Amino acid sequence: MNGKMKAIMKHHRGPGAVLREVEIPSIQNDEVLIKVKATSICGTDVHIYNWDDWSASRVHPPYVFGHEFSGEIVEVGEKVLNFKIGDYVSAETHLVCGHCPQCLTGQYHICEHTKIIGVDTQGCFAEYVAIPATNLWRNPDQMPSDIASIQEPMGNAVHTVLNGDVAGKSVAVIGCGPIGLMAVGVAKAAGASQVFAFDLNEYRLNLAKQMGATTVVNSAKENPIDVAKQLTNGHGVDVVCEMSGHPVAMDQGFKMITNGGRVSILSLPISPVSIDITNDIVFKGIQVQGITGRKMYETWQQVSRLLNSGQVDVSPLITHHFPLEEFEKGFQLMNKGTCGKVVLHP
Amino acid sequence: MNGKMKAIMKHHRGPGAVLREVEIPSIQNDEVLIKVKATSICGTDVHIYNWDDWSASRVHPPYVFGHEFSGEIVEVGEKVLNFKIGDYVSAETHLVCGHCPQCLTGQYHICEHTKIIGVDTQGCFAEYVAIPATNLWRNPDQMPSDIASIQEPMGNAVHTVLNGDVAGKSVAVIGCGPIGLMAVGVAKAAGASQVFAFDLNEYRLNLAKQMGATTVVNSAKENPIDVAKQLTNGHGVDVVCEMSGHPVAMDQGFKMITNGGRVSILSLPISPVSIDITNDIVFKGIQVQGITGRKMYETWQQVSRLLNSGQVDVSPLITHHFPLEEFEKGFQLMNKGTCGKVVLHP
Amino acid sequence: MNGKMKAIMKHHRGPGAVLREVEIPSIQNDEVLIKVKATSICGTDVHIYNWDDWSASRVHPPYVFGHEFSGEIVEVGEKVLNFKIGDYVSAETHLVCGHCPQCLTGQYHICEHTKIIGVDTQGCFAEYVAIPATNLWRNPDQMPSDIASIQEPMGNAVHTVLNGDVAGKSVAVIGCGPIGLMAVGVAKAAGASQVFAFDLNEYRLNLAKQMGATTVVNSAKENPIDVAKQLTNGHGVDVVCEMSGHPVAMDQGFKMITNGGRVSILSLPISPVSIDITNDIVFKGIQVQGITGRKMYETWQQVSRLLNSGQVDVSPLITHHFPLEEFEKGFQLMNKGTCGKVVLHP
Amino acid sequence: MNGKMKAIMKHHRGPGAVLREVEIPSIQNDEVLIKVKATSICGTDVHIYNWDDWSASRVHPPYVFGHEFSGEIVEVGEKVLNFKIGDYVSAETHLVCGHCPQCLTGQYHICEHTKIIGVDTQGCFAEYVAIPATNLWRNPDQMPSDIASIQEPMGNAVHTVLNGDVAGKSVAVIGCGPIGLMAVGVAKAAGASQVFAFDLNEYRLNLAKQMGATTVVNSAKENPIDVAKQLTNGHGVDVVCEMSGHPVAMDQGFKMITNGGRVSILSLPISPVSIDITNDIVFKGIQVQGITGRKMYETWQQVSRLLNSGQVDVSPLITHHFPLEEFEKGFQLMNKGTCGKVVLHP
Repeated sequence: MNGKMKAIMKHHRGPGAVLREVEIPSIQNDEVLIKVKATSICGTDVHIYNWDDWSASRVHPPYVFGHEFSGEIVEVGEKVLNFKIGDYVSAETHLVCGHCPQCLTGQYHICEHTKIIGVDTQGCFAEYVAIPATNLWRNPDQMPSDIASIQEPMGNAVHTVLNGDVAGKSVAVIGCGPIGLMAVGVAKAAGASQVFAFDLNEYRLNLAKQMGATTVVNSAKENPIDVAKQLTNGHGVDVVCEMSGHPVAMDQGFKMITNGGRVSILSLPISPVSIDITNDIVFKGIQVQGITGRKMYETWQQVSRLLNSGQVDVSPLITHHFPLEEFEKGFQLMNKGTCGKVVLHP
Repeated sequence: MNGKMKAIMKHHRGPGAVLREVEIPSIQNDEVLIKVKATSICGTDVHIYNWDDWSASRVHPPYVFGHEFSGEIVEVGEKVLNFKIGDYVSAETHLVCGHCPQCLTGQYHICEHTKIIGVDTQGCFAEYVAIPATNLWRNPDQMPSDIASIQEPMGNAVHTVLNGDVAGKSVAVIGCGPIGLMAVGVAKAAGASQVFAFDLNEYRLNLAKQMGATTVVNSAKENPIDVAKQLTNGHGVDVVCEMSGHPVAMDQGFKMITNGGRVSILSLPISPVSIDITNDIVFKGIQVQGITGRKMYETWQQVSRLLNSGQVDVSPLITHHFPLEEFEKGFQLMNKGTCGKVVLHP
Repeated sequence: MNGKMKAIMKHHRGPGAVLREVEIPSIQNDEVLIKVKATSICGTDVHIYNWDDWSASRVHPPYVFGHEFSGEIVEVGEKVLNFKIGDYVSAETHLVCGHCPQCLTGQYHICEHTKIIGVDTQGCFAEYVAIPATNLWRNPDQMPSDIASIQEPMGNAVHTVLNGDVAGKSVAVIGCGPIGLMAVGVAKAAGASQVFAFDLNEYRLNLAKQMGATTVVNSAKENPIDVAKQLTNGHGVDVVCEMSGHPVAMDQGFKMITNGGRVSILSLPISPVSIDITNDIVFKGIQVQGITGRKMYETWQQVSRLLNSGQVDVSPLITHHFPLEEFEKGFQLMNKGTCGKVVLHP
Repeated sequence: MNGKMKAIMKHHRGPGAVLREVEIPSIQNDEVLIKVKATSICGTDVHIYNWDDWSASRVHPPYVFGHEFSGEIVEVGEKVLNFKIGDYVSAETHLVCGHCPQCLTGQYHICEHTKIIGVDTQGCFAEYVAIPATNLWRNPDQMPSDIASIQEPMGNAVHTVLNGDVAGKSVAVIGCGPIGLMAVGVAKAAGASQVFAFDLNEYRLNLAKQMGATTVVNSAKENPIDVAKQLTNGHGVDVVCEMSGHPVAMDQGFKMITNGGRVSILSLPISPVSIDITNDIVFKGIQVQGITGRKMYETWQQVSRLLNSGQVDVSPLITHHFPLEEFEKGFQLMNKGTCGKVVLHP
């Protein structure tokens, strides 16, 4: 498809981004072109916008960023099977090699050569995006486009929470950014008897309450370890979902976990963290799991079912909508933290 | 404690039972004596009451039967630790050897030498019952005695449903006796996206609806396989909980399971069942699990948490209460099937 | 590649097969053409050769059958990545859809729409075979072609044995056809403390001994259940690998399994089997697994490593070699059972 | 039993130990008295002997230390079932409460109130030791007393290695003290295709070779990460058993693990360790397990079977024997590291 489109570009190696008119991407034989209906801002996008060290080492401006979206297929590459014009889709954002030992054994989410849409390739903060057909996920017709857009981050929450049993257990979510908030909803839906939500941000703790947290703690006002221990008869929680990336909060997670518990870490601390392995890991006999991406496509199936059945209602988390042109408002909100998910509409 | 008490006795090798006045049991050093507050009728008790082949081969009248109960400790053996007079308890009904390979490896529920309270020993359809301290389970004060009494059968439901993942999955419960009905509630609480309930009894299908089944099917009126396939886009259900013991229903379970699914069997068919192993087990790559008893005491912990948190509300299932003296009414209801759990109060 | 080649054809709907000269297959864009170095006879091929009920219902003569092989790539379709002329390969024989829920969640081996090379498509009992690139498995240069050819059936053995723990356990292999014999070797290599091999065929029991069975039992001469119980202190074996497909032997497997054990069934009984579900599955709390195909490609990786490291030596099992022209000798041996694997060389 | 016995005592709060004549311990009702045949020196005993910070904070001299042993029962408490005078036994050294959530759910090895024989109670470096009957493990008659004595540390090795799959995998053992050396043998027996052993001590690397390591690396001479990567085609190892406790070696373990791998930590670093959680745990999607004690008694069963079957031969590891009186020689060897297990004979 020829023509121009509006796109948010990371235009230079420094803070900020700009809206530009660029060529609509042309597709490869194995790709489809999608007209974007909704695209949501991820914390990763904020890092790129703000231009932190990680961004500087990874991305190559100028390019279109953004990776969470839903939209309609408007063009189909000639080698594409199973998808056609008019299909309503979202996409897995990890581009995997298919040939490393991990891919060969079905662990695509930890492919040795993972590339990420909108980070390593052109993204979806635009009117159109080109996506390999292998990465498409079909949405049900009745799913609103903003909900469909945030399935990808919800996949992170589902992957983290459901990477072990939670039914009848106590689950602590440390860090209530949007994915943490979704994790609260997922833990609740999956049968956790207690769901603790920890953060410093009252706005987000209120959202945690709405998502079903049984206990909400402002870690600046109460000692998280004390609260967790007290409400579990001194034994500690069964599962910690670490989503803060903060070394102090992470340490609290290791201290509040019960013997034999599970600590699933989705967050990405910016520097190494000091851990009392002897007392917090070995003597407790716990397991610590690194969580990255979404199982392809087991996690997507779980997300889809939890949303379609109404078991998890993420609508309270979609707090702001803007036209693509007003993306700056979205990034400002994300930087302030007074929002859930911010959705842009091209 | 000396004195007499009322007890329902399986008095002879034939149908029926009688209320008698008998000696209050004396306790061993490692036992406690419990004043029974509530005792519920299990399907096993009905088999013994009706005197079927299994009963004739297993139990030794005259004796007091019954095994589901809650009550208060009134006497404590001298070797008993951790329990005292006044404690509010229920009990695991499997008496295990502690020395077979299964017990040695923590799989007490499949002990090679299992004896069952009220089947192989004196039971709890009485004012008092003597129980080894190792089998006690402490109830929270606020738990009603009838709810506390049915934790044991609820343990069967929990053990069956949670013996694999259910969050975001489709679960079929085949056979909606009281344990099947509890399984519906447990599957729902643990995050199943679809819960199918199958039975021939409209009374119980109504209860299944109340417990949260998303689809209720009278297998005499609709083809269970067709319904299950249709509502899963032709793929079949992820998990079958077989609780009917009927060969036709069991076969339907094997036909409605999806490739790679799980069939957990708690029921006890009275004769061997013919199974199409090639097509229903091997080509489908499914797993079939035999479920017996409750994991000691992991299952009890799960039951306790699901009840105390309010995640599973079993109160709709406790449909009838009678004083111990009117036990005949209870057994008649159980034989008719127009009841959920029937609780007797000594 | 144009030209003629020799191929063993299932030429008509009845017993037997013929060697014919046929066109070398032309390849699709996503396929490669392979010059076959070694191709081994599977039990399935014998069914097709003998023309039993299953064959009559499934295959469509005339066509080239056979599916186990190794060979060298001589032509590469234009859409094929990662393989080139000269590569030494074998192939997974299940052709999967990639789009059913099982494929989407990485369980390709239980794809709802599985087709099998040499059963549903043209096979490898020929000088050349065309194979989709997605199904190729790269062999190490130093692996002999006959060993490389039998990786596919060894995959069945590995999938069966390693579908649960075996280290320090007792494992019974029921049915010592070639895959059963490989299972003996795999169980031994994976740390089973006891490996029982059961069969009626002394020739194959001798091979079982060579593969490392700690106890070899002719089930016609000794009672398998008694032997298994006696050598496990009366407790029974931990794992049963059922590879006989015979209802009597299968029942023996269910009787010799210990409480909580695992019965993994790879065999395909020709008619439904009567199972004492109550006593043999439920009260014992065992799990029964249907095993089909090979996990793609986790199982292939395991096979490759077990062979390349020398942990499993399958050379004693390759008892006969024939030129392709003498295939009749191979089928006669297979029908008599006085052989391990029979390998044909085009 | 009245009388005196020889015992090695931690006599004061400082370095060293002394041989003294003390009262033979009297037993409780639920204990047995054992005449010690062999007792081996653990690294923990060396810490106590040397009087490091941990010892100073934990143990209370004067007392008899030592916890690994085998011996014969010479007296039986009146409440003891299943054991009698003359029985040949060893013992689990963790004394557990039986009432915490971990004990209640069968996870005794991570009991919240664990006490350790010979650390928190009187130990076995003596002619006699009193042990609770619940902690006894029965030895087969033919097992030599020195082998029987080291089942407890071998349990640590087995627990670590078999806490996940190893068949067909690559396993790295970091730190070749006696338990690391046993881990090498266990990994080999359980089907690991590659077993890497890393240490700085050539004496112990030679023992690692004898135990079956496929690659032995002196980490002072070669870069462990480079070797591990190179011999796994650049992908890294599947399983790391961390037994060094050294932060540099531990970091190497995190660097050499493949995506999705398992790091099982048995060692006890003396201070917190800095870990690059983002790159080494999260992006790699690995799991880290804390390993403590032995599963009671699943691990003991595994140890017993691996030894009795001859699958693991630990005899090369028992490098030194001394009479109890010459214990100083044993501790000197342990401090030098020029030994495997040192066994004392009272």
